[in-house]
Amino acid sequence: MSTQTLFNVAVVGATGAVGEQILRLLEQRNFPIATIKLLSSARSAGKTIEFKGRQLTVEEATPESFRGVDIALFSAGGDVSKALIPHAVEHGAVCIDNTNAYRMDPETPLVVPEVNMDKISGHKGIIANPNCSTIQMVAALKPLYDRYGISRIIVSTYQAVSGAGSRAIDELQRQSQEVLSGNDVKPDMLPVSSLPVKHQIAFNVIPQIDKFQDNGFTLEEMKMIRETQKIMGDDSIEVTATCVRVPVVYGHSESVYVELKKDFDVQEIKSLLSDAPGIVLVDDPSTQQYPLATDAAGKNDVFVGRVRRDLSNPRALNMWIVSDNLLKGAAWNAVQIAEYIAIPQS
Amino acid sequence: MSTQTLFNVAVVGATGAVGEQILRLLEQRNFPIATIKLLSSARSAGKTIEFKGRQLTVEEATPESFRGVDIALFSAGGDVSKALIPHAVEHGAVCIDNTNAYRMDPETPLVVPEVNMDKISGHKGIIANPNCSTIQMVAALKPLYDRYGISRIIVSTYQAVSGAGSRAIDELQRQSQEVLSGNDVKPDMLPVSSLPVKHQIAFNVIPQIDKFQDNGFTLEEMKMIRETQKIMGDDSIEVTATCVRVPVVYGHSESVYVELKKDFDVQEIKSLLSDAPGIVLVDDPSTQQYPLATDAAGKNDVFVGRVRRDLSNPRALNMWIVSDNLLKGAAWNAVQIAEYIAIPQS
Repeated sequence: MSTQTLFNVAVVGATGAVGEQILRLLEQRNFPIATIKLLSSARSAGKTIEFKGRQLTVEEATPESFRGVDIALFSAGGDVSKALIPHAVEHGAVCIDNTNAYRMDPETPLVVPEVNMDKISGHKGIIANPNCSTIQMVAALKPLYDRYGISRIIVSTYQAVSGAGSRAIDELQRQSQEVLSGNDVKPDMLPVSSLPVKHQIAFNVIPQIDKFQDNGFTLEEMKMIRETQKIMGDDSIEVTATCVRVPVVYGHSESVYVELKKDFDVQEIKSLLSDAPGIVLVDDPSTQQYPLATDAAGKNDVFVGRVRRDLSNPRALNMWIVSDNLLKGAAWNAVQIAEYIAIPQS
Repeated sequence: MSTQTLFNVAVVGATGAVGEQILRLLEQRNFPIATIKLLSSARSAGKTIEFKGRQLTVEEATPESFRGVDIALFSAGGDVSKALIPHAVEHGAVCIDNTNAYRMDPETPLVVPEVNMDKISGHKGIIANPNCSTIQMVAALKPLYDRYGISRIIVSTYQAVSGAGSRAIDELQRQSQEVLSGNDVKPDMLPVSSLPVKHQIAFNVIPQIDKFQDNGFTLEEMKMIRETQKIMGDDSIEVTATCVRVPVVYGHSESVYVELKKDFDVQEIKSLLSDAPGIVLVDDPSTQQYPLATDAAGKNDVFVGRVRRDLSNPRALNMWIVSDNLLKGAAWNAVQIAEYIAIPQS
């Protein structure tokens, strides 16, 4: 005989690209749900979404929406999180926040379960889900960090448009068709919808994700730097990032150079990666096997390949890390955290 | 009163993506041509190409084709260069080779005019044009090298499909249309046409350009490492490269991390780049201005932006370098060399 605790769950941003994946994963994982509430902005309220065979109506998210909610998953932008999470916490909900709002708050754990699941239990009502490009990198680097220590990371990213939401997917498809048809392209939302200048993403790459900071780095690049240090719990790790949007729909790819603190053997690195939770090693140059965004799309794992020792620094190696930015980079990482809260012994 | 020496010119690979650009530039630059011979494989022989308003017939390239030729520009693949250049040299032609055939030959100068034009005069009949991804990087780094010295370069590339020839452009366009139409994609030639495994390039990125070497690097990556040292004339420069094909038609982009040997000021770096020949600084975060492949396409210059000091290493900086791979990366660099030979005092 067994009993199962069931939870009242709220999904904020239920109609967005990440919210959609969260709902799909909650179904697929058979998450122990008593009731589920789909919340959104006023604009999307009234839409219906199918969940476990039932049509659910999306409601506008308000401070009162969280009365009786046990677990709330937020992915409706930083402003919505900042406005509503304090109310949700007051109503007793544990909030898993996909936005940048609380990530660097010293009171809020920033969690990638494969790296620092132990931090979840110290939460004060909020657990932050890291930035998509950070999650896949730290998940892949954690086994190396534990074994050798890491002194320096230099990463260049190849990030999919879905990281900028459903509208950016439409934009890429529309622009691509325009170019193929020989028409002029009128960029409408990338690189940053709230900024005045727009650039073509179809058949182009844009070296800007999020706004520029005074130091010349973008906010996305600063997220990779600061979040990596916080998740690893080691501010001594030096991180440099260049974040680039590429015309890919799903799946972020990353070219990562990493300097270790101890001597290593490449085969041992590959074994560590093969054995690591959530990591799939795809690395066989002889058969041209390496991770590809198109292969990673729709999967929860982080794929690693092109592992090779640096030719000039024997303590450094290069690798190629790919994962679906909407899944491990967002929805799956959040649902993993929710599962830990629901079933902490797992 | 003045006299002008006119040259008998041969273009080998005249029907290819680079050959086409060489012909356009020879016209545009009003190169001092007495006669011009368009050469190709037997397959393309017989085609006609317009040059300065006249229809020229493409002939099959044979050892005898170079009788009487003064300057021969080769861009028909390494095997063709290896087979024909010795004959062309024997016939007295100066050969400018766009392929990998002679680049690392110690007898052959490897030239980017902005970097080491002085090496041209020492040629023994062959001058090698470097790899496209190397040319734009060394052109941008040369002013920094001269002023501060360079100890280390870590580069990740975002390379256009036109680097793999006209067929790869067709492949990207065909695949893109198939994906947009919801059809299955059947990859046909990328990443390497002569290797068995093909991967989708539309809405994807492929971390393989050219064949894998035993050390886990691809030949393209090794070209960037070795050619950079040879062109700079400094084997002490440590170079690491990860070369990636992206779904862009024209224009390679590069994320470059560079460690200098001396302290520097970022504004001084920007001034050096602004003043450097062949370099255009496009770097204004406040108005979201940085180099883009779509802006570089069709232009001869190398565009540099996103120049920023590294946050953890004060002697390092990051930059974003973009250029049209068929122009400065191939045809324009070759025509610059040809101009130097024709008019050495320029």
